[in-house]
Amino acid sequence: MTAEEAAELVENEEVIGVSGFTLAGYPKAVPTALAKRAERLHAKGEEFQVTLFSGASTGDECDGALARAKAIKWRMPYQSNKDLRKSINEGSTSYTDAHLGIMGYLVRTHAIPAPTLAIIEVSEVSDDGKIWLSSSGGNSKTYLTLAKKIILEVNSVYGDSLIGIHDSFLPELPPFAKPIPIQGVLDRAGDDFIQVDPKKIIAVVRTDKGDSIRPFTEPDDVSKTIAGHILEFLEFERKKGRIPDSLPYQSGVGNVANAVLTAMARDPKQKPASLFTEVIQEAVFELIRADKLIGASGTALTCSSEARQFFKANTAEFKKKFILRQQEVSNHPEVIRRLGVISMNTALECDIYGNVNSSHVSGTAIMNGIGGSADFARNCYLGFFMTPSTAKDGTISSITPLVSHVDHTDHETMVFVTEQGLADLRGLDPVSRAKSIIDHCAHPKFRQQLNDFLNYSLSSSKGKHIPIALDRAFNMHLRFLSTGTMNL
Amino acid sequence: MTAEEAAELVENEEVIGVSGFTLAGYPKAVPTALAKRAERLHAKGEEFQVTLFSGASTGDECDGALARAKAIKWRMPYQSNKDLRKSINEGSTSYTDAHLGIMGYLVRTHAIPAPTLAIIEVSEVSDDGKIWLSSSGGNSKTYLTLAKKIILEVNSVYGDSLIGIHDSFLPELPPFAKPIPIQGVLDRAGDDFIQVDPKKIIAVVRTDKGDSIRPFTEPDDVSKTIAGHILEFLEFERKKGRIPDSLPYQSGVGNVANAVLTAMARDPKQKPASLFTEVIQEAVFELIRADKLIGASGTALTCSSEARQFFKANTAEFKKKFILRQQEVSNHPEVIRRLGVISMNTALECDIYGNVNSSHVSGTAIMNGIGGSADFARNCYLGFFMTPSTAKDGTISSITPLVSHVDHTDHETMVFVTEQGLADLRGLDPVSRAKSIIDHCAHPKFRQQLNDFLNYSLSSSKGKHIPIALDRAFNMHLRFLSTGTMNL
Repeated sequence: MTAEEAAELVENEEVIGVSGFTLAGYPKAVPTALAKRAERLHAKGEEFQVTLFSGASTGDECDGALARAKAIKWRMPYQSNKDLRKSINEGSTSYTDAHLGIMGYLVRTHAIPAPTLAIIEVSEVSDDGKIWLSSSGGNSKTYLTLAKKIILEVNSVYGDSLIGIHDSFLPELPPFAKPIPIQGVLDRAGDDFIQVDPKKIIAVVRTDKGDSIRPFTEPDDVSKTIAGHILEFLEFERKKGRIPDSLPYQSGVGNVANAVLTAMARDPKQKPASLFTEVIQEAVFELIRADKLIGASGTALTCSSEARQFFKANTAEFKKKFILRQQEVSNHPEVIRRLGVISMNTALECDIYGNVNSSHVSGTAIMNGIGGSADFARNCYLGFFMTPSTAKDGTISSITPLVSHVDHTDHETMVFVTEQGLADLRGLDPVSRAKSIIDHCAHPKFRQQLNDFLNYSLSSSKGKHIPIALDRAFNMHLRFLSTGTMNL
Repeated sequence: MTAEEAAELVENEEVIGVSGFTLAGYPKAVPTALAKRAERLHAKGEEFQVTLFSGASTGDECDGALARAKAIKWRMPYQSNKDLRKSINEGSTSYTDAHLGIMGYLVRTHAIPAPTLAIIEVSEVSDDGKIWLSSSGGNSKTYLTLAKKIILEVNSVYGDSLIGIHDSFLPELPPFAKPIPIQGVLDRAGDDFIQVDPKKIIAVVRTDKGDSIRPFTEPDDVSKTIAGHILEFLEFERKKGRIPDSLPYQSGVGNVANAVLTAMARDPKQKPASLFTEVIQEAVFELIRADKLIGASGTALTCSSEARQFFKANTAEFKKKFILRQQEVSNHPEVIRRLGVISMNTALECDIYGNVNSSHVSGTAIMNGIGGSADFARNCYLGFFMTPSTAKDGTISSITPLVSHVDHTDHETMVFVTEQGLADLRGLDPVSRAKSIIDHCAHPKFRQQLNDFLNYSLSSSKGKHIPIALDRAFNMHLRFLSTGTMNL
């Protein structure tokens, strides 16, 4: 079937569950055709909008095309597309940000509606309904299982290089749930395929377009400095006997996370490591090239076209080193806690008391979303939040008196890191946290302002436990909104 | 040994781990004697302060006496004593609020120091170092295992009624952790005693003083109305097939939580239920009397002296119905998620976007702490946050534009309930959440103010996804601080 013919099978107001996780393994042809169909219908004055549930963000062929066509009514649980973001921040698209590890569970436990249609990118499908996913696990098994109708995009770009790399296991639901049988990064608990009723498959579309992922680039100096602080701290903690050698790492998405993995690959003292993470980014190949990767578990494998060639050329070896899970398992509190993951995530903004904003600029405009950061930060053995100390050419301090939006409370933030330094917050009371964060993480040009706020709060607050002068808590944000800089 | 003799064995700056969870099973005689010793030393101009780690709050004989003696340098992870609270809010005592489920794990993983001395209330101890705890599990096994010195208070008040009720299991630590072998509320995974090296026991003190717990009282009308909303909602969700019948309940501490259990006991439609909770409160006996309790798992059993008599008179039966665990297990994400707990916790303040403040008045002064509310709210099947819509004779609205302190982010708050009504927030975007909370939960006299804030924010915010006018976000709090009321 053509993508255009498949798109005709989608109903207005349909709840669609798509594959795809952070630009890996999302459907490309059918969503683009669906956007064109929506535009045609809108031009005729007809209503046509859908709800889009996913793994995480999808590429421009899906989120971007549908957003530009004004075809998305409600989106969950994550996005990173500029046109969709614009529509959400204008108030035109309804968006519910959710922990990535709990999205499938919310659907399965009836907390939110189940998709009636699944549009899933796959590597292969058999006549009897066995489905081998492509470059992401996401919530595909949940959507394939619950939706009454299935549209598959069979993408030839990976060949058979991803066949066998998936573990389709999902935990049972209460009251019949049992322990998740995973005790090691590469443990398998299910089949490598997903079995569906073949009668539910209403369309199969052939495609050959790769995921839209930019090639890996050398980390910038700020990211390298942050990575250096983290590796130095880990070395120190290990020497003190506070961290076992063999704990796996979780590494968030983006420049700083890439820099950490790259630094690990290049550090002669770094022993081979394993990853229990969400997105297996291209920087992981640096670890492989340095012979320092024991194994990597994730829910998505993001490869630029160059990296894909490297992957395909080493398929036999990589299938032993990589496993892709459903995101309900890759991000499950039970497994993360059991394995003792060392977690590293990027913050948008941190406050002096230890709260973190991962998602909202000025507390109001969504950037991407909370993603899986809280799944890991809350259940990890040791957790880092990393950010350059300033943003927008130094006009914004990433350290503020009070974050304008809270994604992570002080109860689960352990270590803050900027290029300025590192603050180990574990066990500190709020005022001690504030002093440590200002001294070690804030950019020097913003320290005076932050100290002035702390001192004013200590003298004026009703309670001195967390001294916060509520009348000045957002002054730095308000100054930025009115003058374009947080600088005095 | 006398308590006074035992108190002499405590060193200045000692890190002490005590038993006790929400006024159950805390040491009474030795801490009081220690406070007197501290006062004597202070009078002589000598320094004497200790660090106090616990399960949760302890009674006035421990937290209160030591706080009044200015003998606590650092306190973790929870408290509820007025004199200790005062000292913390004056900035005199360092206090670190922590998730109760993670406190023991933080100690065991070296994130914070381990106690050098454990002071633990027990029912019995054998010559070869077997210890049977009294009315709480708490972190006692962790402290007994890690401390080099142990002081035991053998309390005769329970007789042998608590012998056999405990399960001393603690999960292994990474990288050797295995699944926690608990699949049902009453499943046991360890011994009923804790084995220690008897040589570590430096003192045994005999006591006969009960936990300082006030008798159960009939719930007030506001609490009953809130309980009614919850039971009605649960009935509706069950009829829709969205909740299995047999899921266990977690019920927080306090009036509203008691009212829910009481309402369940009295509701003819309510089937027998089980509890997987933190504190087994006296209201649970209402369920027993109504023949509606299948079983209850917790880490503490809080009994007034009347309830203790009832318990002791029915020991044989109750030992089959109750189990007390270490709080690392009662509040463990793995078990809470697996069992599918329905969670009910009290909020101090909720904002219109779905964030909850459980702990800090005006964002600055600690009340008690976050407790275990997040352990349950984040991993439950379905979760409620409950609060009367107003406080302090109607001068405070429990629903505000933005909470002054975030303990629970919008990502894990599902249903808000006040005596005004109930807002089911699952799947709603921020603006829809705001409208629902204002319409269903806010007190009518505060709705106009809240709607005005929302409308002003919609017109003035940079992003319309979470429209928050940062310049007015805390106006209701600031008005209360300056005028004594949030009313206009």
